[in-house]
Amino acid sequence: MPVFADITDRLARLSIELPSWAFGNSGTRFKVFGTAGTPRTVQEKLADAAKVNELTGLAPTVALHIPWDKVEDYAALRSHAEELGVTLGTINSNTFQDDIYKFGSLTHVDDAVRQKAIDHHLECIEIMGLTGSQDLKIWLADGTNYPGQGDIRGRQDRLADSLSQIYAQLADDQRLVLEYKFFEPAFYHTDVPDWGTSYAQVTALGDRAMVCLDTGHHAPGTNIEFIVAQLLRLGKLGSFDFNSRFYADDDLIVGAADPFQLFRILYEVIRGGGLDEDSPVAFMLDQCHNVEDKIPGQIRSVLNVQEMLARALLVDVAALSDAQEAGDVLGANGIVMDAFYTDVRADLAAWRESRGLAADPMRAYAESGYQGRIEVERVGGRQAGWGA
Amino acid sequence: MPVFADITDRLARLSIELPSWAFGNSGTRFKVFGTAGTPRTVQEKLADAAKVNELTGLAPTVALHIPWDKVEDYAALRSHAEELGVTLGTINSNTFQDDIYKFGSLTHVDDAVRQKAIDHHLECIEIMGLTGSQDLKIWLADGTNYPGQGDIRGRQDRLADSLSQIYAQLADDQRLVLEYKFFEPAFYHTDVPDWGTSYAQVTALGDRAMVCLDTGHHAPGTNIEFIVAQLLRLGKLGSFDFNSRFYADDDLIVGAADPFQLFRILYEVIRGGGLDEDSPVAFMLDQCHNVEDKIPGQIRSVLNVQEMLARALLVDVAALSDAQEAGDVLGANGIVMDAFYTDVRADLAAWRESRGLAADPMRAYAESGYQGRIEVERVGGRQAGWGA
Amino acid sequence: MPVFADITDRLARLSIELPSWAFGNSGTRFKVFGTAGTPRTVQEKLADAAKVNELTGLAPTVALHIPWDKVEDYAALRSHAEELGVTLGTINSNTFQDDIYKFGSLTHVDDAVRQKAIDHHLECIEIMGLTGSQDLKIWLADGTNYPGQGDIRGRQDRLADSLSQIYAQLADDQRLVLEYKFFEPAFYHTDVPDWGTSYAQVTALGDRAMVCLDTGHHAPGTNIEFIVAQLLRLGKLGSFDFNSRFYADDDLIVGAADPFQLFRILYEVIRGGGLDEDSPVAFMLDQCHNVEDKIPGQIRSVLNVQEMLARALLVDVAALSDAQEAGDVLGANGIVMDAFYTDVRADLAAWRESRGLAADPMRAYAESGYQGRIEVERVGGRQAGWGA
Amino acid sequence: MPVFADITDRLARLSIELPSWAFGNSGTRFKVFGTAGTPRTVQEKLADAAKVNELTGLAPTVALHIPWDKVEDYAALRSHAEELGVTLGTINSNTFQDDIYKFGSLTHVDDAVRQKAIDHHLECIEIMGLTGSQDLKIWLADGTNYPGQGDIRGRQDRLADSLSQIYAQLADDQRLVLEYKFFEPAFYHTDVPDWGTSYAQVTALGDRAMVCLDTGHHAPGTNIEFIVAQLLRLGKLGSFDFNSRFYADDDLIVGAADPFQLFRILYEVIRGGGLDEDSPVAFMLDQCHNVEDKIPGQIRSVLNVQEMLARALLVDVAALSDAQEAGDVLGANGIVMDAFYTDVRADLAAWRESRGLAADPMRAYAESGYQGRIEVERVGGRQAGWGA
Repeated sequence: MPVFADITDRLARLSIELPSWAFGNSGTRFKVFGTAGTPRTVQEKLADAAKVNELTGLAPTVALHIPWDKVEDYAALRSHAEELGVTLGTINSNTFQDDIYKFGSLTHVDDAVRQKAIDHHLECIEIMGLTGSQDLKIWLADGTNYPGQGDIRGRQDRLADSLSQIYAQLADDQRLVLEYKFFEPAFYHTDVPDWGTSYAQVTALGDRAMVCLDTGHHAPGTNIEFIVAQLLRLGKLGSFDFNSRFYADDDLIVGAADPFQLFRILYEVIRGGGLDEDSPVAFMLDQCHNVEDKIPGQIRSVLNVQEMLARALLVDVAALSDAQEAGDVLGANGIVMDAFYTDVRADLAAWRESRGLAADPMRAYAESGYQGRIEVERVGGRQAGWGA
Repeated sequence: MPVFADITDRLARLSIELPSWAFGNSGTRFKVFGTAGTPRTVQEKLADAAKVNELTGLAPTVALHIPWDKVEDYAALRSHAEELGVTLGTINSNTFQDDIYKFGSLTHVDDAVRQKAIDHHLECIEIMGLTGSQDLKIWLADGTNYPGQGDIRGRQDRLADSLSQIYAQLADDQRLVLEYKFFEPAFYHTDVPDWGTSYAQVTALGDRAMVCLDTGHHAPGTNIEFIVAQLLRLGKLGSFDFNSRFYADDDLIVGAADPFQLFRILYEVIRGGGLDEDSPVAFMLDQCHNVEDKIPGQIRSVLNVQEMLARALLVDVAALSDAQEAGDVLGANGIVMDAFYTDVRADLAAWRESRGLAADPMRAYAESGYQGRIEVERVGGRQAGWGA
Repeated sequence: MPVFADITDRLARLSIELPSWAFGNSGTRFKVFGTAGTPRTVQEKLADAAKVNELTGLAPTVALHIPWDKVEDYAALRSHAEELGVTLGTINSNTFQDDIYKFGSLTHVDDAVRQKAIDHHLECIEIMGLTGSQDLKIWLADGTNYPGQGDIRGRQDRLADSLSQIYAQLADDQRLVLEYKFFEPAFYHTDVPDWGTSYAQVTALGDRAMVCLDTGHHAPGTNIEFIVAQLLRLGKLGSFDFNSRFYADDDLIVGAADPFQLFRILYEVIRGGGLDEDSPVAFMLDQCHNVEDKIPGQIRSVLNVQEMLARALLVDVAALSDAQEAGDVLGANGIVMDAFYTDVRADLAAWRESRGLAADPMRAYAESGYQGRIEVERVGGRQAGWGA
Repeated sequence: MPVFADITDRLARLSIELPSWAFGNSGTRFKVFGTAGTPRTVQEKLADAAKVNELTGLAPTVALHIPWDKVEDYAALRSHAEELGVTLGTINSNTFQDDIYKFGSLTHVDDAVRQKAIDHHLECIEIMGLTGSQDLKIWLADGTNYPGQGDIRGRQDRLADSLSQIYAQLADDQRLVLEYKFFEPAFYHTDVPDWGTSYAQVTALGDRAMVCLDTGHHAPGTNIEFIVAQLLRLGKLGSFDFNSRFYADDDLIVGAADPFQLFRILYEVIRGGGLDEDSPVAFMLDQCHNVEDKIPGQIRSVLNVQEMLARALLVDVAALSDAQEAGDVLGANGIVMDAFYTDVRADLAAWRESRGLAADPMRAYAESGYQGRIEVERVGGRQAGWGA
């Protein structure tokens, strides 16, 4: 079995994008709880994200959500981020909060509405040029609640047409990543409900269109690591949205619900080349800190990914391959479990310190005084949220 | 097989309580769409509910939600309702929208918070005295999002204590109905997640404590009609919250997702005595009209229950019993399907007309001009919603 | 809304292949119940299938399973079938009952085992030449029970290679259809678990490789009609395996668990051209009559498909399209429900009679004396089953 | 946080009953794979179980299944077991493999069949007297596959009557434990589908009737540790059947699918007094080693329970309680995760050695030569299995 020193090179490649909206308030349809210190502006969100990166060294980029993070001057925002030690990452579009999108956006039967949704994405591409973002991420709320409400087939055809218009406007170094989701907010049919649909749609677009896999967007019981392996094999895994779930799209902290599943996912990422130097796979968080503190929630999240990646890197691949070829079921499983059961926390702490980072980023945050400071400073104004 | 004339006596017993909040706006965590004509006040909600009852003859009572429907003078509200042709029904408590309930209400570890939640229910009981309501319905958002966040066992013990304090204050003709829900808004554990928990809790309280079964609050694949049969057998089925779902607690129109399931549920209601004259079972809707029109949505809902009840009443019970005893699987199933496949719509239309009701209540509503009127009249003010 | 006379032309196109194994015994891992009259030979299975076709006019072809239906002389079997009034259809391969396939077949890490599995399929193709079968259907039990037991990625690559070797041997008028299944008998990962995997694999093969959709092989909550619409759109829906389920791959009679779902699936078949004259979509049953009588079970099944197809053909497509374009959610849903709620049984009975068929095939079978005859004749020998 | 030395007293209390049938062949409806060395007799099963206990010190008792383990002389079998170093434990009844039980056993509509099923249980009680067994465990395959096939309510009433007749014959020191299961082999309704039903039925019987919780018998997403906490609170958790699952009742090795879930379950066992000296909770395995070796599969299973119990005992209960009371979500969760992430394998190995056991029981078995011996000795005869 490899030892910790063997895996640090690859461990050092881990970089996880933080979503700006994780620092704002979120909740359920029943209630959104506000908390002291919540950012009012995108600049304050960036400051919080930069704090997470400062303490963990894991989160050098921040994803924006348009229009939640709209500003007048994106070049200034980009400079501001860089001064804080982070860069601007993925641009996430939003076609689910305008009244005209009640019955769809890129799939809408009314060409005027559909054009507006396409135009919103073109605006996002323009912003990408200003922010230096590589990825345009598209998650659609499109779908229907009742059988017959919409024409499933027609909507799919219109989606293909809309996406091709958007894809055509991408610069050569930009990508489109299409996220799928099993259900919610649509409760009968969703227009991009599974990886197969996303794969079929992006394959029709071209090389720079990829699938985004959100770990919370599957049917109960789905083997997610299989999908990871399959998409890497097909060359179409563009990015992850990490979070965890017990039931539906719970958007809990990644690794909180089933750390062994996260370990298995990361094992397949490694196995499929997703951690290689030239890998196209981008890692990102997409979570809701409904009841827990947001900044430590993000710190905990990136640490969870790091801890499970370290364990996954410890799998004795050669021994595993031998056991698999020998049909030694318990032996092969044991090799995987040995890596999963290995406590990497002390090694990780020492390694962090060796790189000038906090040994225990959670404690370092608690002791930093940052939370107290923002709770005092961020009074008045309107706390950021989803705008729902 | 019975004919329609054989079933009208029992069909005439069907009475479905409407929830006042169904007429307000509701939605998902992503967006709540407003619609023209949405009530601003509880009085306007009552007017809409009365319209549903006027057209269908099925919905003579209206459930209130406290504090959403709080008024100064409940006696006046009661009179107002009666003038509209309806009466006030179940009082629904709400301990999920105050900041202090972030970590629980009747289960909260802090006695002060728990007392506040108990007091809210005592206030509800007072209101029940004024409105003439029989049932206090308790649905709790209590639960946790992360393993370790709360002490599952201690919370259950505190719940029992809180409920007993509330139960003690009920008048002799009042009941407490405890609703269970599989998940949401809590995503790791819910304090009343299943019928077994509700049953154990209400059994400890006494005869006037019953279970409320919301048809959307179960794990995937759950056989709901079995639970109906079991609770009726145990004498503890107090009420239904009707709605339908494809995925989670979708709160779609009852019967829309799986009309055959609704038929089977109603068959077990009949089989277990739930439609008998002295039945303790109350029928109520609890739905969200996120994308469809609200008043017709309610009309459609009560009609769906009526249509499926009619079909369930058409089951040839004697022949079914014979086939069951003979081990004739296909024969027994065929008898049930014969009833389900029988189109009762024309008979129902004629029967409605014979009782002075609209033959087609959906069309009657569309032609009534009511919707146009409220859209004109209800301008300004704040549209009712969940207050989330 | 169309009337029955408007739909008979398209209704007459319905043809459903029966699986030979439906007439043998099947059950669960706990028990397989035998029944009097069960066939001992493939010839007796064909006789039963022919009886279903004689009474319903819906089932002119019979699928075979190799090796369960292996015979010395396939040409003779073909003639025998034709004399009975049916033809031989899809050949189903079987690589899940030989001890060497314990850890996989077309995906096996050992080339010798994999070659044997490939050779089995080549043998099936030879048989197809003799039986005149068009389709080679491949369902694989391949998968693993424990994390680490197998290399998910490597297995997928080997699957692609195996399939390409098999595909290369097909005659020009033959097809390969690849069935996917969510789980069982493998309980951790399955090598073809979803439509996306089947689609990606068959797309790599060529035009004559298609996806087989078994209606019981999905995760809980999956919108199957969406997959139907998507595969038709992509030109890759080759065939259906019809059955129904409440929980897992229950293999109940199609339409028994959720007739409304079957109706919706058939609506999308029609919508997507799957019932057109030149449609590549083959309809087939794949069920287990664990506790009900087998021949009437098959009759009931094909009738269920016919009844739901009739209802689906009654949807007022023009009105539906108008309502969809108008964003009239309840109106559009109502149009669909009107068709679903229309009782087509009397019309179907009359239509059957007009075509020289039994008005009520279930009753006709009961009265035919066939069951009594086979119970007397088929004594001794070994009842057919899965050979598990 | 406690250290390992703090927990060994309680760890030493762990005792896990092995099912005799785990050493026989089992599989799926598709195939049962045989393996060399599989026992042919109950005596050989006991020998294998004794080997597991010898190496782990965790499995001193063996559950029998009647009729699979029927012998002429139970007193002799008891002595034989004791000579091998184990004792006979729970007696499991079987009313699912006789043809007369096709439509039910304790719930059957035919009193003659029902009496036969009752009598079978009375025979089991007699055997318990001879074997010195404490528990009669009842798992029923009773249920139906099609709506209408059976009368859900009547079956429940008959179940209550049957159970009361069986319960009446128990000796004062004997118990009845009633197992529930979500589905399979019945696919529409199961007569004891959930803990609520088992709880209601055993509560009606008396103090010596308890619930058996099989960890694989729940709907997708069910929070099992909640049920553990609830049943302990209600004083009705009689026993566990341990195994694990990804999909349905997969019967995989306990802890293999989700070790964190097993840890959480065991935490609630401790929390609720289930590991106390006088605890009524019996731990048992119930698994199928379809593709892995059986004896090491059982060793791996009891070790998994021990490892997760050790981690659960390491939870810093005082600190956790403080964090819970403070509403410190991340802090409380962190305390739980700290225990789960602690690698106890080296401490457990040393502790085993200190008690005269193998440090690594898996390796000790591999090196023992036992497997080679039984493969040579157990040739001929009929390998034990489920008899399905």
